[in-house]
Amino acid sequence: MPVQLHSPDPAQLLPVAGVRIGTTQAGVRKANRRDLSVWLLAPGTSVAGVFTQNRFCAAPVQVCREHLQHGPEVRALLINTGNANAGTGADGLARARRTCAALADQLGLAEQQVLPFSTGVIMETLPVERIEAGLRAAIDAARPDAWLEAAQAIMTTDTLPKAASRQVTIGGKAVTLTGIAKGAGMIRPNMATMLGFVATDACVAPSLLPALVKEAADASFNRITVDGDTSTNDSFLLMATHQAGHARIDALDSVEAALLRDALKSLAVELAQAIVRDGEGATKFITVQVDGGRDAAESRQVAYAIAHSPLVKTAFFASDPNLGRILAAVGYAGIPDLDQSLIDMDLGDVAVVREGGRLANYVEAEAAQAMAASDVRVRVHLNRGAASETVWTCDFSEDYVRINADYRS
Amino acid sequence: MPVQLHSPDPAQLLPVAGVRIGTTQAGVRKANRRDLSVWLLAPGTSVAGVFTQNRFCAAPVQVCREHLQHGPEVRALLINTGNANAGTGADGLARARRTCAALADQLGLAEQQVLPFSTGVIMETLPVERIEAGLRAAIDAARPDAWLEAAQAIMTTDTLPKAASRQVTIGGKAVTLTGIAKGAGMIRPNMATMLGFVATDACVAPSLLPALVKEAADASFNRITVDGDTSTNDSFLLMATHQAGHARIDALDSVEAALLRDALKSLAVELAQAIVRDGEGATKFITVQVDGGRDAAESRQVAYAIAHSPLVKTAFFASDPNLGRILAAVGYAGIPDLDQSLIDMDLGDVAVVREGGRLANYVEAEAAQAMAASDVRVRVHLNRGAASETVWTCDFSEDYVRINADYRS
Repeated sequence: MPVQLHSPDPAQLLPVAGVRIGTTQAGVRKANRRDLSVWLLAPGTSVAGVFTQNRFCAAPVQVCREHLQHGPEVRALLINTGNANAGTGADGLARARRTCAALADQLGLAEQQVLPFSTGVIMETLPVERIEAGLRAAIDAARPDAWLEAAQAIMTTDTLPKAASRQVTIGGKAVTLTGIAKGAGMIRPNMATMLGFVATDACVAPSLLPALVKEAADASFNRITVDGDTSTNDSFLLMATHQAGHARIDALDSVEAALLRDALKSLAVELAQAIVRDGEGATKFITVQVDGGRDAAESRQVAYAIAHSPLVKTAFFASDPNLGRILAAVGYAGIPDLDQSLIDMDLGDVAVVREGGRLANYVEAEAAQAMAASDVRVRVHLNRGAASETVWTCDFSEDYVRINADYRS
Repeated sequence: MPVQLHSPDPAQLLPVAGVRIGTTQAGVRKANRRDLSVWLLAPGTSVAGVFTQNRFCAAPVQVCREHLQHGPEVRALLINTGNANAGTGADGLARARRTCAALADQLGLAEQQVLPFSTGVIMETLPVERIEAGLRAAIDAARPDAWLEAAQAIMTTDTLPKAASRQVTIGGKAVTLTGIAKGAGMIRPNMATMLGFVATDACVAPSLLPALVKEAADASFNRITVDGDTSTNDSFLLMATHQAGHARIDALDSVEAALLRDALKSLAVELAQAIVRDGEGATKFITVQVDGGRDAAESRQVAYAIAHSPLVKTAFFASDPNLGRILAAVGYAGIPDLDQSLIDMDLGDVAVVREGGRLANYVEAEAAQAMAASDVRVRVHLNRGAASETVWTCDFSEDYVRINADYRS
């Protein structure tokens, strides 16, 4: 039950010069599901990515890292849903490589010019034959305006596809950024989410891409959580085809870079928030803002403790302002010298706690009303510094359990 | 729905010489509920406790720490359920002190000789008047054999009272240990659980008590988790009345101390496991054993990552051997140099993963059968050292959400 989220209007998803996408039904896990995508990138495209910090990272993540580090120019992406190819050992690695080789063969490329991505059930054998059999149809279907299908073809428990575009003018030229993302459970990205892809036709020095993608991930996918489970397959990729025709951006601190960076961050935040709004079983979108930390790390630590607490999340589900649970999470977040007598807390516009205790004039009915909204903000002030951090999460409903007790069947 | 847990037989709960307990219905939060207990300790009793590490620790926890550190001999405990008196600021502290003073007054003691304990909803004002009004009835009801009532009088969302006894022979004398505990949600104790009380008539040097209580807590309450939420009120108290008549135990490494320590640990483990077996919404009791860590800390870190993962816990609820979720949790547990190609995993007697990948001869039906049991063991071998650690947890059901979305109403 997505929270204030709608299927993207295909007309609003702008093609990016130099990028064509084809999708097909390969039957990776289930029949009659768009589950295989091939992305074709024009020569000269630059690519940078950030990947999961999960030490049990999936085979395709390992292959992506290799190809990006040592390979020639990336010219194609190969993405499947239905099978994560994680926890599959040496055999899984070999299978990921085999799918890259198969696509490279059909496109006249080297294996290292293909980046593989997988999402779905962990610890199942990747059905390479079915993927190979679907490649030709996906390649033949490739077109510049297939972004909605691309978003559909990476869904797992997502109820809606997630895609968005931005357009900015740089050096008198229209620059387009379009991206897609997926994810609804096993969402607590660490460096990236499972999966996000953004393409732009901006002309930007390839050496700047790693910084751009990291900055965008840190401001977006690295600020969300559904269930605290960091996936084995998180990947966030930025592709720049350099075809917009403006003068190349060579420095991150230029005015032109600022335009691009803002557009990229705004797009990434929209996609990341869409993942939370479509979080498994979600009925509420919750912004957790922690002010007054000594540094960003401790503000984030407190924000995540709140955002991960099953008790806080079930209270939001019930619209029950049992807000002491938030204080408990602040207290166990792991700041050894936290002074509870300095803590303030607000729920939306309702002041709840000052100096560690409930305000005398607090009216629970007002908090209950604030909590009943579909978008709710919790603000905690630690009053020990100036660092402010925000994370986004959703509530925890019986449907989350139902979905995850049923996911494979 | 408790997992292989039954209400204790009162005849099996042995009185401890020097300890009398009285309970009553004080209407702290709800009517017709046994919610107030007074414990009367004989002169000469030694007391030591461990308390929550939550920085938002409750007012009674703060008062307990003060009284234990600076006060004269402890002679009474005052325990209420229905209200945690946490997140209540300076007013909450004053109220906790006032209840101690009121009981001390009735017993002819100093305020510092009373230890207060509270459990229930956080951030509500403690109804001191109702507690004061109930004191006389509780004192008058005090008897040596009221352990079952004592366990009932600290329940919140617990479905069953938790109490047990041990008896060992030391120096030719029968030494008794009897304890109670409560807790079903907000359970991820750090130093202790909310709440555990053990009394013994053993003769033991008072200076040894802090080490004994810490050792027992580390082996029991500090090895369990229901939902990862460390409570504001966790307290585990050990009381020794020294009335068993054997020669005093003066050294931790003596044969007599070993008998006492083993009995105490065994009792604490039974009580801690009872909390998990009665975990909110639990349908399964899960033992997570992590072998082959470099040190205990990292083995425990991996065990807790598994035990806290909502995806792992919902898979157990469904008896669905979607065991890749366990690998994902191992991978994000936070060991930076973990090598996934060394990981082995077993479920009960079923070998599932060797060298980071699913075994070729793994049969899912066997894992499904192992998972369907009410008591299940997950064993992960990191193969990078000799440290082994075990934690106990339960599964995550729709009832957990239901209970916690309803808890206050």
